[in-house]
Amino acid sequence: MTETFCLPVRVYYEDTDAGGVVYYANYLKFFERARTEWLRSRGHEQDRLAAEENVLFAITAVNVEYRQPARFNDLLCVTATVTDHSRVSFVFEQEIYRDHVGGELLSTATVKAACVDVQTFRPKRMPEAILTELAE
Amino acid sequence: MTETFCLPVRVYYEDTDAGGVVYYANYLKFFERARTEWLRSRGHEQDRLAAEENVLFAITAVNVEYRQPARFNDLLCVTATVTDHSRVSFVFEQEIYRDHVGGELLSTATVKAACVDVQTFRPKRMPEAILTELAE
Amino acid sequence: MTETFCLPVRVYYEDTDAGGVVYYANYLKFFERARTEWLRSRGHEQDRLAAEENVLFAITAVNVEYRQPARFNDLLCVTATVTDHSRVSFVFEQEIYRDHVGGELLSTATVKAACVDVQTFRPKRMPEAILTELAE
Amino acid sequence: MTETFCLPVRVYYEDTDAGGVVYYANYLKFFERARTEWLRSRGHEQDRLAAEENVLFAITAVNVEYRQPARFNDLLCVTATVTDHSRVSFVFEQEIYRDHVGGELLSTATVKAACVDVQTFRPKRMPEAILTELAE
Repeated sequence: MTETFCLPVRVYYEDTDAGGVVYYANYLKFFERARTEWLRSRGHEQDRLAAEENVLFAITAVNVEYRQPARFNDLLCVTATVTDHSRVSFVFEQEIYRDHVGGELLSTATVKAACVDVQTFRPKRMPEAILTELAE
Repeated sequence: MTETFCLPVRVYYEDTDAGGVVYYANYLKFFERARTEWLRSRGHEQDRLAAEENVLFAITAVNVEYRQPARFNDLLCVTATVTDHSRVSFVFEQEIYRDHVGGELLSTATVKAACVDVQTFRPKRMPEAILTELAE
Repeated sequence: MTETFCLPVRVYYEDTDAGGVVYYANYLKFFERARTEWLRSRGHEQDRLAAEENVLFAITAVNVEYRQPARFNDLLCVTATVTDHSRVSFVFEQEIYRDHVGGELLSTATVKAACVDVQTFRPKRMPEAILTELAE
Repeated sequence: MTETFCLPVRVYYEDTDAGGVVYYANYLKFFERARTEWLRSRGHEQDRLAAEENVLFAITAVNVEYRQPARFNDLLCVTATVTDHSRVSFVFEQEIYRDHVGGELLSTATVKAACVDVQTFRPKRMPEAILTELAE
């Protein structure tokens, strides 16, 4: 459950701003891509979770520190580690490194996600397969 | 039907890229905001069209010319004019000027939108109120 | 210095995601638009600060809570209040309400911004005019 | 010069809108990622072109057809083929397929890019290494 997952992310023009660096909101896209690929690497496809289990993961809080700016054309490595969970929510700790885990640390985040009903956005018990895996 | 509608749009950091100018995809956001406000100015709210008439407008083609770059903090004026329509589609001609209509012309676009079913994305006859107005 | 500034923001399709609500990263765009307009309302244009004073404001940390989702076509009101500052940084407390201040509270944020050199991104003393105002 | 380059692109929540499909402006991001990776695959890194040759590629026109919507979690394949060029510009023909080249065709684009000076945005002769390659 606490093993480090790292997704390579290339910085394109779309991610940067006129300050010459990655725009601060776009780090949240990178963090989410890593969470999505972490779920996929464990066999959980979110389109199927929505269609078959009627749930999606809504973000309820984020806490991000920006230490060093990422720049156009950088190759980043984005981690995703679940550090806590209940039956209806997860907490992820995430980092963005330049090039590889252990490279220059650019940003860290704590992200809280709740499992919610796709129509009502009310909290809903996570699918059994995910709970079983988190309990390991 | 052919009167010019112009929406003021401020350029924020989110819109720019590391080249120091507005990122080329983001002009399409500005063009869409102007089409949305043109519809609203005629009393058509797209959330109600989706909920009550079960339709949305899907873009089927865009043709954009980028003449001069827009920059951070510029105030733009974005036009939207319907130049053609059928029972299931519109064509918009749009321009982006710096400051006001008749200011420096930064970009022009032709945008084709189809009225489609919100579930199937199949073409669907436009709501009567919109057709009536377009016919005037 | 602590008076509430509120910017009206319309939610367009560009802001939403397939969950039917505003994408979590895009709230950070709304928060930044409000900070920018707060600065502008006090006479500080960031393009001039960059060109004349060689500074920009880099975000060093954000802490966001998402309480209720904003949806397509909602009209939001985004506040920006400076609650602390030093010679090189600000802290903003910000809220997003549906419709108007005191409407349904959708999100809150604490945002730390540092004044940095536009080339080196090293911390730099804030322009005198801004410091004077913050001291009031 | 005319061989097909294809970049795999995953659709994340950030790319979609409340209509449940990829937002029309975001296809332009996918097209640009493919052009960037095509250049990289031939040894041209755009951060070095900016720093050493003082040039960047500015888009002057795009023509996009949207045939079928891409959806959350789709895996796309984005092509980039140079079909024409002068000493200061390229024309790219690009397609987006579902899954792989020859899969369902979702979108096609013609994109004109000009080589410009990074400060002035005035047209500038392309770097010799790129011209030589395009001439082959």
